Amino acid sequence: MIITLTSDFGQGDGYAGVMKGVILSIAPHARLVDLSHDIAPQAIRQGAHVLAGAAPFFPPDTIHLAVVDPGVGSARRPLIVTTGRAVFVGPDNGLFTFALEQEGARAWLIDEPAYWLPHISRTFHGRDIFAPVAAHLAAGTAVAQLASPLADPVWLPRLEPARAGNGAIVGHVTYVDRFGNLISDIPGEWLRAEAPAGRRWIAEVAGQRFCGPVDAYAAVEPGALALLVSSGGAVEIAVRNGNAAHRLGVEVGAIIQLRPT
Amino acid sequence: MIITLTSDFGQGDGYAGVMKGVILSIAPHARLVDLSHDIAPQAIRQGAHVLAGAAPFFPPDTIHLAVVDPGVGSARRPLIVTTGRAVFVGPDNGLFTFALEQEGARAWLIDEPAYWLPHISRTFHGRDIFAPVAAHLAAGTAVAQLASPLADPVWLPRLEPARAGNGAIVGHVTYVDRFGNLISDIPGEWLRAEAPAGRRWIAEVAGQRFCGPVDAYAAVEPGALALLVSSGGAVEIAVRNGNAAHRLGVEVGAIIQLRPT
Amino acid sequence: MIITLTSDFGQGDGYAGVMKGVILSIAPHARLVDLSHDIAPQAIRQGAHVLAGAAPFFPPDTIHLAVVDPGVGSARRPLIVTTGRAVFVGPDNGLFTFALEQEGARAWLIDEPAYWLPHISRTFHGRDIFAPVAAHLAAGTAVAQLASPLADPVWLPRLEPARAGNGAIVGHVTYVDRFGNLISDIPGEWLRAEAPAGRRWIAEVAGQRFCGPVDAYAAVEPGALALLVSSGGAVEIAVRNGNAAHRLGVEVGAIIQLRPT
Repeated sequence: MIITLTSDFGQGDGYAGVMKGVILSIAPHARLVDLSHDIAPQAIRQGAHVLAGAAPFFPPDTIHLAVVDPGVGSARRPLIVTTGRAVFVGPDNGLFTFALEQEGARAWLIDEPAYWLPHISRTFHGRDIFAPVAAHLAAGTAVAQLASPLADPVWLPRLEPARAGNGAIVGHVTYVDRFGNLISDIPGEWLRAEAPAGRRWIAEVAGQRFCGPVDAYAAVEPGALALLVSSGGAVEIAVRNGNAAHRLGVEVGAIIQLRPT
Repeated sequence: MIITLTSDFGQGDGYAGVMKGVILSIAPHARLVDLSHDIAPQAIRQGAHVLAGAAPFFPPDTIHLAVVDPGVGSARRPLIVTTGRAVFVGPDNGLFTFALEQEGARAWLIDEPAYWLPHISRTFHGRDIFAPVAAHLAAGTAVAQLASPLADPVWLPRLEPARAGNGAIVGHVTYVDRFGNLISDIPGEWLRAEAPAGRRWIAEVAGQRFCGPVDAYAAVEPGALALLVSSGGAVEIAVRNGNAAHRLGVEVGAIIQLRPT
Repeated sequence: MIITLTSDFGQGDGYAGVMKGVILSIAPHARLVDLSHDIAPQAIRQGAHVLAGAAPFFPPDTIHLAVVDPGVGSARRPLIVTTGRAVFVGPDNGLFTFALEQEGARAWLIDEPAYWLPHISRTFHGRDIFAPVAAHLAAGTAVAQLASPLADPVWLPRLEPARAGNGAIVGHVTYVDRFGNLISDIPGEWLRAEAPAGRRWIAEVAGQRFCGPVDAYAAVEPGALALLVSSGGAVEIAVRNGNAAHRLGVEVGAIIQLRPT
């Protein structure tokens, strides 16, 4: 049984390693796969984005353990989300919004302390609650033994891209990756749906205008801005062999405007 | 058999990967678990802290391979430490002080070159000596075939927290984690032992005073200093949704004073 | 079957995790070992160096999946290299120069889309082509089913160290590791071949002169420059307990001059 791990623990402090020790003590045959431990501290939206991009590529019945948990020790609830395809374990703070959107998704409140570590700290539920629960799931314990149905799990508020009457689109930067590529909330299909095939768009971001879409980074000159569809299917702004976020001076939340030519 | 890996090699150069290749060549069925490769370069105390925090959560008989080794190539000795519960392999420079403190711990000098790589470099004993020794242990070779008893392993000097006559406590910051939380050498129980239940303390760090303890980060206002007991059981100073090390301008070694109110 | 992973994806975005999900969906029993995901963005030469240093230490038949791929989406070809000992999968841009230099190495053009993911993006062939191909190899599919012989794979241009008539050597820094150690293209044996045993050399780098070689970092004073042979067998310049790259202000490409005394 595969358990993936996602957190904002970084690599230096060994916190992710501690969770692995806990898991292997309970489920010695679990296969552990790190998704990322370099989510920015307490960046729930970044963690949610990474999970949403990675989870669909894992085999059925994978367990995704994720801990980006600024509310640890507060009334924040511990959560399991089951979809037809996978199980998610972690804090109830929006991290699993992607999973909750799946058809047939169900939320569960983790409420059976018999399956947790004997001593529960107030600052490290990843070790004390979430890792043991994920491990017991991997070892075959049923969700219903670990948790009870939950009606109102937390969702992340959604930035919504909009289509204007004249065919124009306004969206937002929702993620900036390591290469400085800007991922937006605008579905790639909108480029085709709104304009006849072969028609082109003018993008405007931070006062800069450029045309597109292109098929690949390599379709523009080195250093030029490119409008394209990301590997995840969203409208993306990139600079070939460069960093679009630095070049445009923008961050998550920046506005992207698209007009058909 | 589980082998954990801890080092200051970072992630970019592939040195940790080389050790894994060596291990899997000798012990193909070993389970490899990274604790941290982002220990600061040559920071023995940080490595020791990470090991001490993680090792207790791994299953019995886990092998912990750790390489933070500023003395590589000198007369620094190669070491195995066995406790009733686990085995530690690495340089004899204090990295395993935590293990040596365990009841029944024994130190061993690694001295049987037949179990090392054929060519021993002077700069990478992690690859040439420690990884093969850990792998042979995982493959079933007895410690006594790889090493001889050693009477005087190196211990890290200990910063000792102190209790004054008036109930006050003076301790030190021993670790700063990724979130900027300050972990001290003051045992969490001292807060209860020195003051009646419910009594509170005034903490002073870098000229700033604040009260505590609280149960969790979330018990103080966002941005406020919190005195609490860490997930490892030590007195900890944190800033809710912030970075206490930056806020107070302190590093490892800074003094923490606690007075009962 | 072992699959190692090397990329410039970093740890934060989850791209390496996505490749692992794809692999485990096709080859559930593959053993995944990260070499490095912190290759500098698009630094093909750094990736090639890490692979060359690590691959020889892995068991026979290991599959090395590597993605440092500035040309993704262009006419850049997808490549397999087989040596007698291992298989390499990734972009045809020089990343596998080390493997191509091995006796009996063969290059193959990946050209059978039936073994790729159904939808091929233009920006993430690591996920869509290279990971599935590596996984099918691990699952037992023959190279010849996945690819066709390729006559002209891309090699990295080589910086060549030179020997002058008077016994002097001129080489270059080819790699700077996390500790700031400078690895050169000068084979360590040249120090012995060019000068009688015990004879010493004067190194000059960035206007600084110092003698050597020494056997280990610890053979010089803390803070002093050391000339030695690296764990990979090349001439190396280091500062004991310090950072030679910062101290000398040099980067990859800097010239190293050696004269026998």
